[in-house]
Amino acid sequence: MSDETGAMLTEMENLVDLDTLSIRELNDLLDLALMYQKGKNGPTLKRDVRIANLFFENSTRTVTSFQMAEHRLGLSRFDIRVAGSSVQKGESLEDTIKTIQAIGMDIAVVRHPATGWYRELVADRNLHLSLVNAGDGAGVHPSQTLLDLMTIKKEFGHFDGLKVAIVGDLSHSRVAKSDAKIFRKLGMSVRFAGPEEWWSEELAPFGSFEKLDDLLADVDVCMCLRVQLERIGQAGRATFTANDYHQQYGLTKARAERLKKTAIIMHPAPVNRGIELDDELVESKQSRIFDQMANGVYARMAMLTRILEERDLLEKE
Amino acid sequence: MSDETGAMLTEMENLVDLDTLSIRELNDLLDLALMYQKGKNGPTLKRDVRIANLFFENSTRTVTSFQMAEHRLGLSRFDIRVAGSSVQKGESLEDTIKTIQAIGMDIAVVRHPATGWYRELVADRNLHLSLVNAGDGAGVHPSQTLLDLMTIKKEFGHFDGLKVAIVGDLSHSRVAKSDAKIFRKLGMSVRFAGPEEWWSEELAPFGSFEKLDDLLADVDVCMCLRVQLERIGQAGRATFTANDYHQQYGLTKARAERLKKTAIIMHPAPVNRGIELDDELVESKQSRIFDQMANGVYARMAMLTRILEERDLLEKE
Amino acid sequence: MSDETGAMLTEMENLVDLDTLSIRELNDLLDLALMYQKGKNGPTLKRDVRIANLFFENSTRTVTSFQMAEHRLGLSRFDIRVAGSSVQKGESLEDTIKTIQAIGMDIAVVRHPATGWYRELVADRNLHLSLVNAGDGAGVHPSQTLLDLMTIKKEFGHFDGLKVAIVGDLSHSRVAKSDAKIFRKLGMSVRFAGPEEWWSEELAPFGSFEKLDDLLADVDVCMCLRVQLERIGQAGRATFTANDYHQQYGLTKARAERLKKTAIIMHPAPVNRGIELDDELVESKQSRIFDQMANGVYARMAMLTRILEERDLLEKE
Repeated sequence: MSDETGAMLTEMENLVDLDTLSIRELNDLLDLALMYQKGKNGPTLKRDVRIANLFFENSTRTVTSFQMAEHRLGLSRFDIRVAGSSVQKGESLEDTIKTIQAIGMDIAVVRHPATGWYRELVADRNLHLSLVNAGDGAGVHPSQTLLDLMTIKKEFGHFDGLKVAIVGDLSHSRVAKSDAKIFRKLGMSVRFAGPEEWWSEELAPFGSFEKLDDLLADVDVCMCLRVQLERIGQAGRATFTANDYHQQYGLTKARAERLKKTAIIMHPAPVNRGIELDDELVESKQSRIFDQMANGVYARMAMLTRILEERDLLEKE
Repeated sequence: MSDETGAMLTEMENLVDLDTLSIRELNDLLDLALMYQKGKNGPTLKRDVRIANLFFENSTRTVTSFQMAEHRLGLSRFDIRVAGSSVQKGESLEDTIKTIQAIGMDIAVVRHPATGWYRELVADRNLHLSLVNAGDGAGVHPSQTLLDLMTIKKEFGHFDGLKVAIVGDLSHSRVAKSDAKIFRKLGMSVRFAGPEEWWSEELAPFGSFEKLDDLLADVDVCMCLRVQLERIGQAGRATFTANDYHQQYGLTKARAERLKKTAIIMHPAPVNRGIELDDELVESKQSRIFDQMANGVYARMAMLTRILEERDLLEKE
Repeated sequence: MSDETGAMLTEMENLVDLDTLSIRELNDLLDLALMYQKGKNGPTLKRDVRIANLFFENSTRTVTSFQMAEHRLGLSRFDIRVAGSSVQKGESLEDTIKTIQAIGMDIAVVRHPATGWYRELVADRNLHLSLVNAGDGAGVHPSQTLLDLMTIKKEFGHFDGLKVAIVGDLSHSRVAKSDAKIFRKLGMSVRFAGPEEWWSEELAPFGSFEKLDDLLADVDVCMCLRVQLERIGQAGRATFTANDYHQQYGLTKARAERLKKTAIIMHPAPVNRGIELDDELVESKQSRIFDQMANGVYARMAMLTRILEERDLLEKE
């Protein structure tokens, strides 16, 4: 076997779920991301480090952001084309990952539609490459949560007592659950709004479900979630059109007027302009939507730096 | 917002349509391309420059040529996969471009099926990355026009009084119109030939429509355009087969004999051997078809160098 | 024409079929691969060398392995997207190759479904880029054969008198024929097993067709071939299910018990766990399956080094 040590990686050598990190570890990651955002240089690598991007679902935004983070850290990048590949010949994810490990990859960034795709892999003693979860089915999306946190910390300087509204397609969103859980852990309170059909009792432990108009004036962060267009305007699947949605659950200009002047508007993107948000709000003074995308690069640099550090691949500063 | 300055880019910081350049600016670009072709080294960059290639239509030739140009200039290259991406989730081109800007790209090379896709973008004050048009629908194809010009200038040393024939699928070709306009501006005369069904009155201001056999003996450049195979041999759409086309409108060996000995044969490629051109003519002594492809790299290096210069990203030589 | 010299490349400047190499040349390649495997550094290049990967059939494993080999040798890598490209516009492989040559590529690594796709190209005087065959239809797969040989040589230190079983889908496998021929040339003996329907008389010159259970106890190498899943369990196409196959022709745990303790298990991968091989055998002590994948990188580094050497692109060591 190609396995060098037979030892399992520690939790910090992979980054698959932020939930396993302590509050202190989370804040350290965020502070590093914010330092990168302010211009801190990347660390010096001890040797050539190879990283593979395996996206089994398309996501231009996420993959490009990881690529930029990898580039800025000086990693050697391999974008594996998995559509129409061995995977389609029936190869398991386990064997695909073991193959790229055998080929010499040090880290794999993986997005995969199977919720928890990484669980068996991180427990496999024949695996010694690091895994980064770039989104798993209905599971979590750690780099998105981190960039959301970073955007909030950059704005307010802290998390304690901040009030966050998460609005929209709550039941189908990876972001709603994974963000809400971590937000509370860090001291923020969360309230949800959106169509009742899309409320999920799974979220009840993290915050109350309210009418959008009842919470607007009170929150520091209004995070609108993306609506899957295929859920709108189809008889039998939803009872409202795009315009109905915007009027009932969207952030219209009238609703935005009711936000506190210090509140910020967030969205994981891509935005359906005129549905979740009024077109003009996307680039308005209170919007941090494009900042989120910019911050994503720094958040991912911080995640990868942590892995490199844990694996002793960095020169001392 | 991520916008650093709020100022619009100047015309020379984007390169979306050669028509806005003066004759002098065009000649400067061509001379730089010819110097690259003769072995001139690329300039020294002041900092890491990131360039994204976004091809919403496939074009191996054009994208590979841009990639080589970017490589030779030492740019950091990101090939964005747009098929099956956020774009398919309904994201507008504007938001895709603003996303990759937020991620940290300095330049985007874009091919898109929408004619004039760049018009609103170059007027958007929130955009500060440079745009390069690699082909827009029925619009223009500046890097192709530039490599055509470069091939002619390399051959004849000048443009004044040269006579060019453009032959074939005139109504569907991006090349016919954008080349013809610039050719005339630089002092060449243009004549057209091909099936009458494919003549377009839009081209009338730039040259006369004639019978191919009437102009062959007289021209310095015979540029054959690619025939879309789907327009041939289908009842109701075209009245000729591939062979009919070749005999009536193609450059047969007999017709090539009638060209001046100093005349050159050009084609934007890919060639349908045996249709637009006799198979043997493609690599004949008078053909410059593969030279055009080689020249394309230098033409694109010149375009990108100009943008880098305008944005003050180059060290003084 | 862009052709610099008009001279054809020598056999060693391309690497399209190992069959043209002498035993000595083969062993030199293998020894170089083994040195790379032990940590030898790549050579120093005289100038920037550009290499294009053109895969007209998907193969994550092979393309990623070539990419890593190219990366480790410091080559400038271009991954050409050929699906949905000019090729689909009807361009011939010849013209695609001549295009990327014109664009400035020094080497092209090509996988193509046409058996012998390279034959006319290596005889074309207008071609001066080097061709590497990464698999041609029902033809050969030189880099796979080389990594198989390397795995055996690493294990046993020599080839003389070694006995190899090749088991499975013999008639549809590129590996069976190309491996068997070279194995014999190097002094090994080959025996075949598998479903009678899948035996091919073409293989008869290289070894006898036997029952799997008759040869197990006797061989040094048991190489199982991949079964195309579409050939299994479909009425009229095959008379056995996946489980039938495993029981009759697969390496079950019971059969593996009968192998010599010093024998090794090989497979070109991807493996159908539980069909060609018992799931647990894939990563067992006698398996070299993931080692083969690791060795593939070194074998490909050796192939490319040889080409660079022949083309005088390497500094003297």
